Amino acid sequence: MSTHRYALRVACPSIRGVTAAIANYLSTNGCNISDSAQFDDKSTGRYFMRVSFHSEEGRTLSQLREGFAEIVERYAADAEFFDETAKRKVVLMVSRFGHCLNDLLYRWRIGALPIDIVGVISNHTDYQKLVVNHDIPFHCIKVTKENKPAAEAEQMRIVEESGAELIVLARYMQVLSDEMCRRMSGRIINIHHSFLPSFKGANPYKQAFERGVKLIGATSHYVTADLDEGPIIEQDTVRVTHAQSADDYVSLGRDVESQVLARAIHAHIHGRVFVNGNKTIVFPPSPGSYVSERMG
Amino acid sequence: MSTHRYALRVACPSIRGVTAAIANYLSTNGCNISDSAQFDDKSTGRYFMRVSFHSEEGRTLSQLREGFAEIVERYAADAEFFDETAKRKVVLMVSRFGHCLNDLLYRWRIGALPIDIVGVISNHTDYQKLVVNHDIPFHCIKVTKENKPAAEAEQMRIVEESGAELIVLARYMQVLSDEMCRRMSGRIINIHHSFLPSFKGANPYKQAFERGVKLIGATSHYVTADLDEGPIIEQDTVRVTHAQSADDYVSLGRDVESQVLARAIHAHIHGRVFVNGNKTIVFPPSPGSYVSERMG
Amino acid sequence: MSTHRYALRVACPSIRGVTAAIANYLSTNGCNISDSAQFDDKSTGRYFMRVSFHSEEGRTLSQLREGFAEIVERYAADAEFFDETAKRKVVLMVSRFGHCLNDLLYRWRIGALPIDIVGVISNHTDYQKLVVNHDIPFHCIKVTKENKPAAEAEQMRIVEESGAELIVLARYMQVLSDEMCRRMSGRIINIHHSFLPSFKGANPYKQAFERGVKLIGATSHYVTADLDEGPIIEQDTVRVTHAQSADDYVSLGRDVESQVLARAIHAHIHGRVFVNGNKTIVFPPSPGSYVSERMG
Amino acid sequence: MSTHRYALRVACPSIRGVTAAIANYLSTNGCNISDSAQFDDKSTGRYFMRVSFHSEEGRTLSQLREGFAEIVERYAADAEFFDETAKRKVVLMVSRFGHCLNDLLYRWRIGALPIDIVGVISNHTDYQKLVVNHDIPFHCIKVTKENKPAAEAEQMRIVEESGAELIVLARYMQVLSDEMCRRMSGRIINIHHSFLPSFKGANPYKQAFERGVKLIGATSHYVTADLDEGPIIEQDTVRVTHAQSADDYVSLGRDVESQVLARAIHAHIHGRVFVNGNKTIVFPPSPGSYVSERMG
Repeated sequence: MSTHRYALRVACPSIRGVTAAIANYLSTNGCNISDSAQFDDKSTGRYFMRVSFHSEEGRTLSQLREGFAEIVERYAADAEFFDETAKRKVVLMVSRFGHCLNDLLYRWRIGALPIDIVGVISNHTDYQKLVVNHDIPFHCIKVTKENKPAAEAEQMRIVEESGAELIVLARYMQVLSDEMCRRMSGRIINIHHSFLPSFKGANPYKQAFERGVKLIGATSHYVTADLDEGPIIEQDTVRVTHAQSADDYVSLGRDVESQVLARAIHAHIHGRVFVNGNKTIVFPPSPGSYVSERMG
Repeated sequence: MSTHRYALRVACPSIRGVTAAIANYLSTNGCNISDSAQFDDKSTGRYFMRVSFHSEEGRTLSQLREGFAEIVERYAADAEFFDETAKRKVVLMVSRFGHCLNDLLYRWRIGALPIDIVGVISNHTDYQKLVVNHDIPFHCIKVTKENKPAAEAEQMRIVEESGAELIVLARYMQVLSDEMCRRMSGRIINIHHSFLPSFKGANPYKQAFERGVKLIGATSHYVTADLDEGPIIEQDTVRVTHAQSADDYVSLGRDVESQVLARAIHAHIHGRVFVNGNKTIVFPPSPGSYVSERMG
Repeated sequence: MSTHRYALRVACPSIRGVTAAIANYLSTNGCNISDSAQFDDKSTGRYFMRVSFHSEEGRTLSQLREGFAEIVERYAADAEFFDETAKRKVVLMVSRFGHCLNDLLYRWRIGALPIDIVGVISNHTDYQKLVVNHDIPFHCIKVTKENKPAAEAEQMRIVEESGAELIVLARYMQVLSDEMCRRMSGRIINIHHSFLPSFKGANPYKQAFERGVKLIGATSHYVTADLDEGPIIEQDTVRVTHAQSADDYVSLGRDVESQVLARAIHAHIHGRVFVNGNKTIVFPPSPGSYVSERMG
Repeated sequence: MSTHRYALRVACPSIRGVTAAIANYLSTNGCNISDSAQFDDKSTGRYFMRVSFHSEEGRTLSQLREGFAEIVERYAADAEFFDETAKRKVVLMVSRFGHCLNDLLYRWRIGALPIDIVGVISNHTDYQKLVVNHDIPFHCIKVTKENKPAAEAEQMRIVEESGAELIVLARYMQVLSDEMCRRMSGRIINIHHSFLPSFKGANPYKQAFERGVKLIGATSHYVTADLDEGPIIEQDTVRVTHAQSADDYVSLGRDVESQVLARAIHAHIHGRVFVNGNKTIVFPPSPGSYVSERMG
């Protein structure tokens, strides 16, 4: 097919007619909507919409953006047009637990997530060989109390030079500075190995074991200056019994962490997530968005 | 608020501009969309849309329907406007297992499902007292090979005289005739006590036990002339182990059956289900649609 | 079969040979083990065992207890023999949300839980008619700051006179006094409408909504003087999205609360739960233990 | 600690006293039971037991086996003593979908499964480089209708020469001969990408899509001469909607397939699975059995 598959994200104050205005615009510009979702938040008066469409008459993204400026202004909207099939550049950060890294490298290799991993940053060297063998630049940046500002400057330099629009903390165990959190607001996704808000901070599996919960979980969220308090994108849980130790939890948690993080990235990368105060809106996946490019 | 909360369901051939036409129509008629969902089935070329909206300038349902006739014609659409808060009339049918009946009576009592149970039909008398004590008409209609046509005629008479638009087979263990299935197409919901298509027909828990599955399930579907082959609305599963017998499955299955059926009814009653060949489209629930009227 | 189905629970310091001693005792006394489970807690040095068996040569419970005294002494054991088929007397307490009450009444009616509900205590009158129509004594005891000690004395009188060995707080919204908690230690089961330890105290669904979690949950635990901090017996979760309000959570939570509470009671009543510090051991269900007596 | 952690598996006719005999034997031989599970199958009259224990007085496995011979004879038992920490030799077989292979290589690398992967056999060369880079022998054996007996002979030669006691079909898409199935009975584990018994044979995701199910699943089972009919070890499901295509299912299914297979292998390798006719008994995991050796 010669058509392009694009998507549009809009967030604006809830005003009657906005859906019609957007639908008209797309129709008038030769775009055929394939699926869409909307949410009108009564408590905040904000309206959110995501539309997938085919540009059947050849309009390019820049043409679509240009023509849409009038609607953006009329509705005081935040709007973003993007190509659903274009790969987004991502930098991964990891410390010593490698399961999320391994999982994301695999999904990237088979094209199950439309991302380009343009770099991996670690405060350890454990995964240097693994990453390099994937032909991905590996950056070891040790972080200490003393060098933290310099280390973060170096991290940010790598992110910016690589053109990455998203940082994924794939079990990166250093707390980022408030400044870095603010600067990359809505662009850093973390996986925390508990069902937040339970068991924030260090050693959540040990905390969970000591409390005697019957399910452990994982939470993927945008990183903010408040540790483990950012907007939650995805969570899931797995059953444990009295017969499992905190060390068992670490292993059982690997699978749920890897999957929760991958799902959160899938949602973010496909433009399905909107930050709404300290919460998120996560729209359902578009048809075909899970299809991977390769068998394995 | 003096506004009315309505919804619109549309199914039509997939043609560019239909979303815009609908959104324009609603906007022009003083309606504010609160949430919507769409699906464009590439394989069948059919387009499906459900919109929830507030009629802020007082348009009534009949006014909205009238004005919409032009769009219906232009797009060869099936369209239905309805009041999301109006209760739909439902007839339940039950045999000897009463858990789904009990569950639905409870949800009805607390206003958790926008239904009016206008009658219960059974081929046994076990639940006569229970139903009558809820001030719901109870109809015992014995069914034998010989009287089946007459029995069904009587069942249909009750359905029609009560104005019910939906029949729920809440563990009704008689097979309906092809004719009744056709006549009530898309208007009879059954709960089958297996994860279809596994274990069709009689004694699915015994079949499941003999096969040694590790999860048992329940399936709610529209009834068609093909036994246990109708379009599936909802399914779920629950874990079993070697230590449970087929009789244990019967008990463990009660909870999952009750919930799967209730979820299927919720989806149907809120106009979220579209039959698409032998499959269904089930759109997500609108905000607030689970809220019940009473505490218990 | 003329044999009796009994069970034995043992908790004692972990000492080599205790399993053999117990198994020998049962074998020597004509008892055939049908299933058993054990757990040796390395961190506390405590050993826990539950055995189901058939007394094939007619030993009664009191004979078995008597002969076992020597083992109890030798291993400093807490041991309990009981008849798995005997119904345990239970008092339910409820306030204004009736879903757990309704669910437990149903399970009791069909014999899905081996309990006798010997009374329902409420600080409201909402469920008087429902309870009385089940031929169960209903006790309305209003609780205020002023009369709390007297009210609890009255509650305890009812529990004791009825011979109840377990109190189930089926959405009873009053905090019990420390004294009552201590006196009934390990004999009061509560259902809390959150996934503890998240969202303790009042309005957990509102708290969950405000935090923006993607799963809500329920927790059943033994009541201790520390509010919502007692040993957890069972937990489960259900998925929510941005499109559900806190009031939607209340409805969605009903199903998971009812089931989590019923599972916790099932485990307790069948002697599968051991309190181990502030945690619990919950052994798997014996074959046949879910089988209900009636169809509905 | 100088003690060894061993386990014992016993299957025999259900006779009173067998638990006592086993427990006595272990106690007498200086072994301290850490956890155990039993199941008495009423329908077949078979008794199954698994015990984990520490040999505190230095008895070796061969000493324990020798002394146990008398019990084996007395109870006509199948018994197996093994070292829970010893790694079992495994051969993987794979075709073109590599997710299970990738997942198992990762678990093996971090020591999350006590296995030695002593070879990978494939009918394609896609994963040669991946496998070889893990320093695992890779064997490409093309299979055609004509060379099937010779190909299987070669496969069996590799299995035998490597000393593997288990073959894992990690998405190996060739049907094995009846003879190979019989010869390796109970020693070949397959992952089928459907919730069996639904959707046997080829293209289960396409079958599932066409039926319109709301959950897809995966099943791990022992391979028998009846295709997709062997004893089921583990199953799980994942939710899909109308908005996912059969190709989406392929991707969504990867995660559930990988995990179901890994759980089945975990159960088998730890001696928790007993074949019981065409079904399995799967005992709960021993404390600590999920702990992995490395972080990643």
